[in-house]
Amino acid sequence: MKIKNPDYKQTILDEFKAQKFMAFINARVTKIEPGHCEIEVSYKEDLSQHHGYLHAGITGTLADNASGFAAYTVIEKGSSIVTSEYKINFLSPVVGEKIIARGNVVKAGKTLIVCRSDVYDVKSGVEKLCATALLTMVEIKGK
Amino acid sequence: MKIKNPDYKQTILDEFKAQKFMAFINARVTKIEPGHCEIEVSYKEDLSQHHGYLHAGITGTLADNASGFAAYTVIEKGSSIVTSEYKINFLSPVVGEKIIARGNVVKAGKTLIVCRSDVYDVKSGVEKLCATALLTMVEIKGK
Amino acid sequence: MKIKNPDYKQTILDEFKAQKFMAFINARVTKIEPGHCEIEVSYKEDLSQHHGYLHAGITGTLADNASGFAAYTVIEKGSSIVTSEYKINFLSPVVGEKIIARGNVVKAGKTLIVCRSDVYDVKSGVEKLCATALLTMVEIKGK
Amino acid sequence: MKIKNPDYKQTILDEFKAQKFMAFINARVTKIEPGHCEIEVSYKEDLSQHHGYLHAGITGTLADNASGFAAYTVIEKGSSIVTSEYKINFLSPVVGEKIIARGNVVKAGKTLIVCRSDVYDVKSGVEKLCATALLTMVEIKGK
Repeated sequence: MKIKNPDYKQTILDEFKAQKFMAFINARVTKIEPGHCEIEVSYKEDLSQHHGYLHAGITGTLADNASGFAAYTVIEKGSSIVTSEYKINFLSPVVGEKIIARGNVVKAGKTLIVCRSDVYDVKSGVEKLCATALLTMVEIKGK
Repeated sequence: MKIKNPDYKQTILDEFKAQKFMAFINARVTKIEPGHCEIEVSYKEDLSQHHGYLHAGITGTLADNASGFAAYTVIEKGSSIVTSEYKINFLSPVVGEKIIARGNVVKAGKTLIVCRSDVYDVKSGVEKLCATALLTMVEIKGK
Repeated sequence: MKIKNPDYKQTILDEFKAQKFMAFINARVTKIEPGHCEIEVSYKEDLSQHHGYLHAGITGTLADNASGFAAYTVIEKGSSIVTSEYKINFLSPVVGEKIIARGNVVKAGKTLIVCRSDVYDVKSGVEKLCATALLTMVEIKGK
Repeated sequence: MKIKNPDYKQTILDEFKAQKFMAFINARVTKIEPGHCEIEVSYKEDLSQHHGYLHAGITGTLADNASGFAAYTVIEKGSSIVTSEYKINFLSPVVGEKIIARGNVVKAGKTLIVCRSDVYDVKSGVEKLCATALLTMVEIKGK
């Protein structure tokens, strides 16, 4: 995985902090590595659906953001990432105390960056794959 | 479109109200018809991404929920809907004062209900298609 | 829908003819309009799956190609189209004598062109929607 | 991965043989294991697109079939598999002498089986990931 922006960690942390919705749902970036990013959200009642579990909208949001930030690790300094599209499969309801989304770059092209996100439901500290997504990111240069 | 639950409007309103995340982002159901449901969310800073626009996570959440509730109009009384998977394409950033997601049933099968959601960015009252999604819902009987 | 290549019809017919796989399955382009393209394939036993119906691989191929050629109507002369990704939902088995795939441009961006394809199963001359797809095409300039 | 049909290998080989389209493109099943299936197709001019490379329709067909048959390894004897939907990302053109699609079961539910297929372009014996797909299969019981 070629790294073109040596300051990618700081760029990601800055962009993440600038997303007010991330603070609103109390999301945290917990790992950043070349081609990889992890984001967590803890359960709270405000984020629940009609059976009391974490809302799938949070799962989708995290799957999207984890891959979006994974893509930030492989682009040029000054570029930004926009999500072109994603597809997500929900495998089981989120019943635990938090979820962790792990985003990975599958292929970094000149403009398009294909990523995969796996989302884990963490209950009593045990992880279970609860959703998986395939995503296409676009590098917008000079922004 | 065959209607099996004559009280589908009330069922949808009850389920929607039970989703605390919908209240948290101040989403409203604005239309329910056979095979169709519309949900709106107004812009507020808490829901924004790093350029200040509405976060794509909100767009995805509404696309999912509008089709999920559209599916509720064609299932049996006592059944509930779970999202199996969806795919969403983002067409333009959401720059307006609110978004409207319109969910439509494309095919209601015995177990699977395929839906389409179109999401509109509303700026100064003018609508613009900003995202489109294709979704698979599952009817869980007797719940 | 802005047209940049006045000779798009000829371009499409030439590209289609150059795809030997289209001749192999005996596919025909039956309509080309701005932002729109239709392709047909007739049933033959060689294209069948294990229940004797037309193979879903043909359905997917046509959904992809119909939108790919729809995208050709909105790009510059000399550009070519590559499929970035697509998602397809199969709604019912193809039991008729032919299928028609109708591809439509949903949004023509600077580089990415988002399309939708609807595929119809034609039995005794009656059309039935049997698959629907959402696709992202990339314009490769100067090729 | 729980195996309910001890004769799954024979079932898969029989179903594969019954798909005449597989013979038409000269596809071969090269590996069957619990939750896993591999299918190959060699390049021939009849299967090419307009640049002379293997047509993406073949890539999509194999991605679909490899996961479909992977799903056959985890269902009951007498059940059959139907593809509900899939999403595929194309990562690079297929320029080699053959492709191999590897399908894997990600989650085997009561009715729905979520799978992933990775497709490799093999050039001079060297494999390169050229497409990746996420798929939803449905188990049809008693057929």
